Amino acid sequence: MDRWDEQEKYQPEKRLVQQFDFIRELDKEKFIGRQTYLSDGIRKENDAEHAWHLALMTILLSEYANEPIDVLKTVTMVLIHDVVEIDAGDTYAYDEERKKTQREREKKAAERIFGLLPMDQAQKMRSLWEEFEEAVTPEARFAHTMDNVQPTMLNAATEGKAWSERGIHLSQILERNKNTADGSETLWAYSRNQFIRPNVEKGRIRTDETKE
Amino acid sequence: MDRWDEQEKYQPEKRLVQQFDFIRELDKEKFIGRQTYLSDGIRKENDAEHAWHLALMTILLSEYANEPIDVLKTVTMVLIHDVVEIDAGDTYAYDEERKKTQREREKKAAERIFGLLPMDQAQKMRSLWEEFEEAVTPEARFAHTMDNVQPTMLNAATEGKAWSERGIHLSQILERNKNTADGSETLWAYSRNQFIRPNVEKGRIRTDETKE
Repeated sequence: MDRWDEQEKYQPEKRLVQQFDFIRELDKEKFIGRQTYLSDGIRKENDAEHAWHLALMTILLSEYANEPIDVLKTVTMVLIHDVVEIDAGDTYAYDEERKKTQREREKKAAERIFGLLPMDQAQKMRSLWEEFEEAVTPEARFAHTMDNVQPTMLNAATEGKAWSERGIHLSQILERNKNTADGSETLWAYSRNQFIRPNVEKGRIRTDETKE
Repeated sequence: MDRWDEQEKYQPEKRLVQQFDFIRELDKEKFIGRQTYLSDGIRKENDAEHAWHLALMTILLSEYANEPIDVLKTVTMVLIHDVVEIDAGDTYAYDEERKKTQREREKKAAERIFGLLPMDQAQKMRSLWEEFEEAVTPEARFAHTMDNVQPTMLNAATEGKAWSERGIHLSQILERNKNTADGSETLWAYSRNQFIRPNVEKGRIRTDETKE
């Protein structure tokens, strides 16, 4: 109890108040639903759970990056890559209509949400998010590989449920994964052969030959 | 489509299979419930969401650590600190009965779950988890500060709902937080004055003076 009465007149630094305003705001990511089923095949994933999974994958799989990556930078990037969805919502990878307005909605969200932070951290986090979006640095490329492989792994773990429910075609999956190999050839080969191919063979992913 | 038929006869490396076995197993953390309400005051948090929040907090608040910390190491530690609960379950901070068997249940879980990884990563992750449990290094101390401050922040954000529902006493909160200042004096002062004290004043946290 001795520590309790120490500091009766506490005035928090503005910096710390701003940081906690951002950290508290981020709690809302836990309410942003994605289209991927978790491994129980019943509940769907939310953005916070997804980002946690990507961060762990980045740490465990960084050895397979095509080019050397700064792991902490990549982890930070995947932890915040979906923050803008607090305002802009999740845009499903195969929803062509909503994808048209996605960039604009997300830029506005980035402005507001990262803007809660003290200036230096706001700039740093905002620019990491932009770097992810542009997908040209080794870290951003690897982050996208994580972002593509993780839901593919979960879809395979649930016997292709999300794919077959929506009648997803192989061509759509290959289009979505067109840059997965840019971050890691090894992980794209694994995902293609271990997660996607068996579900094509079992008819859970449609091909041009699949009877409608 | 050109990448699709490249590698018909694919034999994945054993190492990669082990890594994905672990990564897939970790999905179960998303089903482990905690006692903390999210900021909507309705749904309670799960372990994966909690760990994601701690990782972000570590990155944003490391400047307040009492001693310099390796941020990537601390982030990795918080990302995996609850992995053992996949087998051992969440032990509520104020459940004295279950806390007696906690250590043994969790060691057994660590053996099995980290054991899914290739040997080098299994050892590394297992020893990071042990380091968190022992709470003597600067990184482990700061990780515990995060682990204590985050639910306190959420409890305060929900008007002390989890505290008042369970009739939690200030003395229990101070006992639980007895090492929070070891990781960061600054963050403990903030948590105590911004999150805890207002809820004592409003009677949502009991004190010896509170009428039962």
